[in-house]
Amino acid sequence: MRVTQALIRNLQQKPKAIATIFGDRRTTWEELVERISKLASGLLKCGLQTQDRVAIVSLNSDKYLETLFAAPWAGGVIVPINYRWSAPEIAFALNDSGTKFVFLDDEFGGLASDLRKLVNHELTIIALESEFLGSDATHEKLIAASDSVPEFHNNGDDISGIFYTGGTTGRSKGVMLTHENHMSNTFQSAALMETSDGMNYLHAAPAFHIADAEFFYTITQLAGCHVFVSRFEPQTCAEAIGKHAISDIILVPTMIQMLLALPEFSSYNFSSLKHLYYGASPMPEAVAGELIEKLPHVKAYHLYGQTESAPLLTSLDPSYHVTTGPLAGRLRSAGRAMPAVEIKIIDEGGNEVPRGTIGEIIARGPNIMKGYWGQEKLTQETIRNGWLHTGDAAHMDEEGFIFISDRLKDMIISGGENVYSAEVENAMYQHPKVAQCAVIGVPDEKWGERVHAIVLTENDEKISPEELMSHCRALIADFKCPRSITLRTEPLPLSGAGKVLKTELRKPFWKGLKKAVN
Amino acid sequence: MRVTQALIRNLQQKPKAIATIFGDRRTTWEELVERISKLASGLLKCGLQTQDRVAIVSLNSDKYLETLFAAPWAGGVIVPINYRWSAPEIAFALNDSGTKFVFLDDEFGGLASDLRKLVNHELTIIALESEFLGSDATHEKLIAASDSVPEFHNNGDDISGIFYTGGTTGRSKGVMLTHENHMSNTFQSAALMETSDGMNYLHAAPAFHIADAEFFYTITQLAGCHVFVSRFEPQTCAEAIGKHAISDIILVPTMIQMLLALPEFSSYNFSSLKHLYYGASPMPEAVAGELIEKLPHVKAYHLYGQTESAPLLTSLDPSYHVTTGPLAGRLRSAGRAMPAVEIKIIDEGGNEVPRGTIGEIIARGPNIMKGYWGQEKLTQETIRNGWLHTGDAAHMDEEGFIFISDRLKDMIISGGENVYSAEVENAMYQHPKVAQCAVIGVPDEKWGERVHAIVLTENDEKISPEELMSHCRALIADFKCPRSITLRTEPLPLSGAGKVLKTELRKPFWKGLKKAVN
Repeated sequence: MRVTQALIRNLQQKPKAIATIFGDRRTTWEELVERISKLASGLLKCGLQTQDRVAIVSLNSDKYLETLFAAPWAGGVIVPINYRWSAPEIAFALNDSGTKFVFLDDEFGGLASDLRKLVNHELTIIALESEFLGSDATHEKLIAASDSVPEFHNNGDDISGIFYTGGTTGRSKGVMLTHENHMSNTFQSAALMETSDGMNYLHAAPAFHIADAEFFYTITQLAGCHVFVSRFEPQTCAEAIGKHAISDIILVPTMIQMLLALPEFSSYNFSSLKHLYYGASPMPEAVAGELIEKLPHVKAYHLYGQTESAPLLTSLDPSYHVTTGPLAGRLRSAGRAMPAVEIKIIDEGGNEVPRGTIGEIIARGPNIMKGYWGQEKLTQETIRNGWLHTGDAAHMDEEGFIFISDRLKDMIISGGENVYSAEVENAMYQHPKVAQCAVIGVPDEKWGERVHAIVLTENDEKISPEELMSHCRALIADFKCPRSITLRTEPLPLSGAGKVLKTELRKPFWKGLKKAVN
Repeated sequence: MRVTQALIRNLQQKPKAIATIFGDRRTTWEELVERISKLASGLLKCGLQTQDRVAIVSLNSDKYLETLFAAPWAGGVIVPINYRWSAPEIAFALNDSGTKFVFLDDEFGGLASDLRKLVNHELTIIALESEFLGSDATHEKLIAASDSVPEFHNNGDDISGIFYTGGTTGRSKGVMLTHENHMSNTFQSAALMETSDGMNYLHAAPAFHIADAEFFYTITQLAGCHVFVSRFEPQTCAEAIGKHAISDIILVPTMIQMLLALPEFSSYNFSSLKHLYYGASPMPEAVAGELIEKLPHVKAYHLYGQTESAPLLTSLDPSYHVTTGPLAGRLRSAGRAMPAVEIKIIDEGGNEVPRGTIGEIIARGPNIMKGYWGQEKLTQETIRNGWLHTGDAAHMDEEGFIFISDRLKDMIISGGENVYSAEVENAMYQHPKVAQCAVIGVPDEKWGERVHAIVLTENDEKISPEELMSHCRALIADFKCPRSITLRTEPLPLSGAGKVLKTELRKPFWKGLKKAVN
C-alpha cells in the first residue's frame, strides 16, 4: 500500500466531489490529483531523485496537502517541520535529513536567507504562496509549467515521511514512517471510525504534527473533504465548523478548552460536528466533563500514541465518554489497543506485569516506525524484538484499558507540544553563569503544564530570569523556553547514580495535585 | 499481522464476552483462546511442523473455528475442504498440498478409509466430534491432554491457509493466502462495515467457502460473537437469527431467495438483523427487490471477489440498494473497489479501456494471493506485474462502479458454487461412448444456473442421460454433475482456432433472457 493510492481511488470513484476547501479556494478530486501530479512533475524537473527529502514549513492550507502528497507521488519523502522552531532548529533537521527541497509559505518566507546560511548543502526553496526574496520557484508556477506524471510506485516499506520529534538526548530525531506505517494507521482508524459520505474534516491543529498529519491520509482514504484554517484560533475554528458543516476534527485538550471557553459559545453552530478526536496531551477531567455537557451530540475519541507509531496506539471510544452509567469510570483512561496494535505493560526485566501494576508501555504492530533517521543504535534501543518501547508508564485494567501514570522519558507537555527537558537544559547550560539546571513541568491552568527551570549559578552569581529566558529564545523555539525560573543556592538533589531527582523538585509544585497525564 | 493476533487482543480486552455459540455450547474468548492454544499444542505433539498443512472436512461448528485458528497458532496452514467433493477430489487436494493432518466431523468420518487408500502419504485423522473407525485422535481429547502453548509468531507473508478452487484446466488449484492477505481483507471490510459492540454473526453459509471463511477473521478482529448452524437450511437459519439476535450474516443469493420464500416468513423475527452481505453468484433483480421490500430495515452489501483475493475486490454499499431516488440504478452493479484494492478494466493488449467499455477486470492490493500452490507457471499467468487477472469481464461507469458482463473463464455458478465446465467435461470424456462434449450453464429458477451438457456420441451410439449422469457422479461432486443433457448428432460448432463456440450453444437457452452475472 502507498499513501498516494487513495488519490487514484478518489479520482476513479468521486472525480467531481470536493476534496479541499481553503478560504475561497476549492478543488475537486479530479483537479487535486492533477495538481499533485503536476507538482510532482515540477519537483522531478527541479532534480528530485527517488527518496529525496522535501521539507515544508507552513501554516495549514490546501497547498500543504498538495505538497505532502506530491513528494511521495514523485518518489520522494515529505519532512513536515514544526513552524514554531527557530531557524537553527529547522536547519538542524534539514542538515540531519539531507533535505534539498523546502517549501515555505508567506509566513515563513523570511527564513530563506537564514536557512541558506545554516544548511550545509544546496537548497531549492519553493514559495508555497507568493514569491519572496531567495525563493527559487513557486508552487503555483511549478504546477502551471509541468505536465502530469504517473504516480511513482512506492513499496509499502519505502519511507513516505520523516517526522522530527524532540528527544531525551537533547536533539530532535527524524522518525522514519513508511507508506505501510501510514496506511496501517489509516485502516485501523477507519475500522474504529464511523464514516459517511458527507464527511468534512477540519485541519485546525497544526498539520506538521502527526496528530493532524495522520488525518491527511485517513480522510483521503475515506474520500472525505479536507477543510483548512491556517492556524488554530478558537473563533475562526468555531466559525469554520458551522460554515463548512464540519463532521470530524482533531484538537489537543488546550484547544478544546479554548473552544468551550468562547464567550459567545452558544452563538456558534456545532450541530454538524459528529466526532471529536483528541490526544497528544492530558485531558483535565473538568474539561472532559464540560465537553460532554456542552456538546452532548458529539462523539469523542481519546487517542494516545507517538510519532514513532504513526501515531495511534490506543483509543478510548465514545461509549466510555460518560460520567454515569455502567461504562463510566474510564474517562481518565487512554483506552485500549488499536485494532492491529499489540500492547503490553512490562517491568524493568522485560516481563509482562499483572493487571493493575504500573510498568512501561510497549507496542507492536504494522504502524511502528522503520526507525530513527541515521540513528541505528537509538533505533535498536527503542525497538527491541519488534516492540516499540514508548517510555511511558501505565497500568492496564482487567479489560485492557490503559491508564498512563507517568512518562518515563523526561518530557513536559505544554499545550499539546512535547518539550524534552534535556533539550531545554542543554540550552540553559550554554549560558556561562549556569552551574546546574533542571527543567520540569509544573501545573498551568491554560497549558496543562508549563516549562519551569531550577537553576544554580556559578559561585552563586546573580542573574535575572529575564536574561536566562532571552538567552534560551536565541537557541530554541519559544514554546520550549522556561516560562518561570527558580534560582537556588543549594546543589540539586541527586540520586545514588548521580541523576537529578526531579521527582523531589516537582513535589512542591504538584502538592495536592495529580500530575495530569493522558 | 497474523490471523491469530486478534485472539490475543480479545483475550486482553473482552475475556468474559461470548465468542462462539453452537447448539448448547458456548465459549468465552478466554475459554476459546485456551482451547485453541491447547489444540495447537496437541497438533504439535502429533508431529506438526512449521507450515505443515491441516485439512478440515466438516459442517459448520464452533470446533471448525477452533481448528481454523489452531493450525496457524501452531505455525501450520489450514486447508478448508469443500465437503460436497467426492473422496477422490478430496484426496487430490490432500495429495496436491501434501496435507498430513485431517479433521473430519461426524458427517464425514466415513471418508476416513477411502482417504487412507487414496492419499499417497501418511495421514493423521482427527475426529472433530465423536470417534469413528480409523480416527487417530479426537479434537476434544487433544485439548484435554495438552497444555497451552504460546502463539507461533507467523510473519505477514507466511501462508495461513490454502483454499482449493475449481480451475479452467479441469483440476482444482490451491490458492495460497497469507496472514497479510486475510488481515488486509479484514481491515478493508471493517473500514466499510458498521460495527458495534453487540455484533452477532451467523455462519450459515458453508465455512469452507471463502465467502463465509473470511468472516472467521473479520468477526474475530471485531470481537463479535460467532454463531453457527451446521448447514444452511432456510427454517433453521431464520430461527437462529431470531434466537441469537443475529446482526450480521453472509448468504449467497439462492439462500436469500429460499429465506424470503419461507411460507411462514412473517412469523420469524428478523428485527435484530442489521447487515446482510451477499455475493459469490449473481443476484437476480427480482430477489433484490423482494429483499428490499420484505426486510426494509436491513442494510445489504453486494460483495464481489475471488478466492484469489481473500476474497473481496468490490462492494456495493447499502445506500445503492434502492429502487428509487438519486442513487437508484446501481443495483445490478457489483460496486466499487474495496478501500485498498485497485481495479482496472483492460483490453486484450493490457491497456485500460475507456469507461463504459467492456474488458477484463484486473486488481492489485495487499489481499491478492501469494499464488497457486505448486503452480508457478499458472501463478505467473494469473498475477502479472502485481495485477491479478480475474478472468471476469465488466465495464466501469464514470464513478467507478463495475458491471460484470461475463466470466471470461468458462464457469457456471449454480447456487453459489463455482463449477468449471472443463472439469465436468473431463469427467464426461472418460465415458467411452462420448465423442464430443460441451458443458454450459443454462437458466434455472432455483439455482440461478444449472449445469447442462451437450453430447455427441461415438458413431451416434445410443446412451441414456441417466447413464452419463451416474458415470459423472462416480468421478466428481454431485453439484458439478449435469442436471440435464442434450444428445446431438451433429458435431459441435467450432471457432477458427478449433475452440467449441459455447456462445452459440448457449443462445437457444438464454433467448430473451440475460445471462445474469453479478
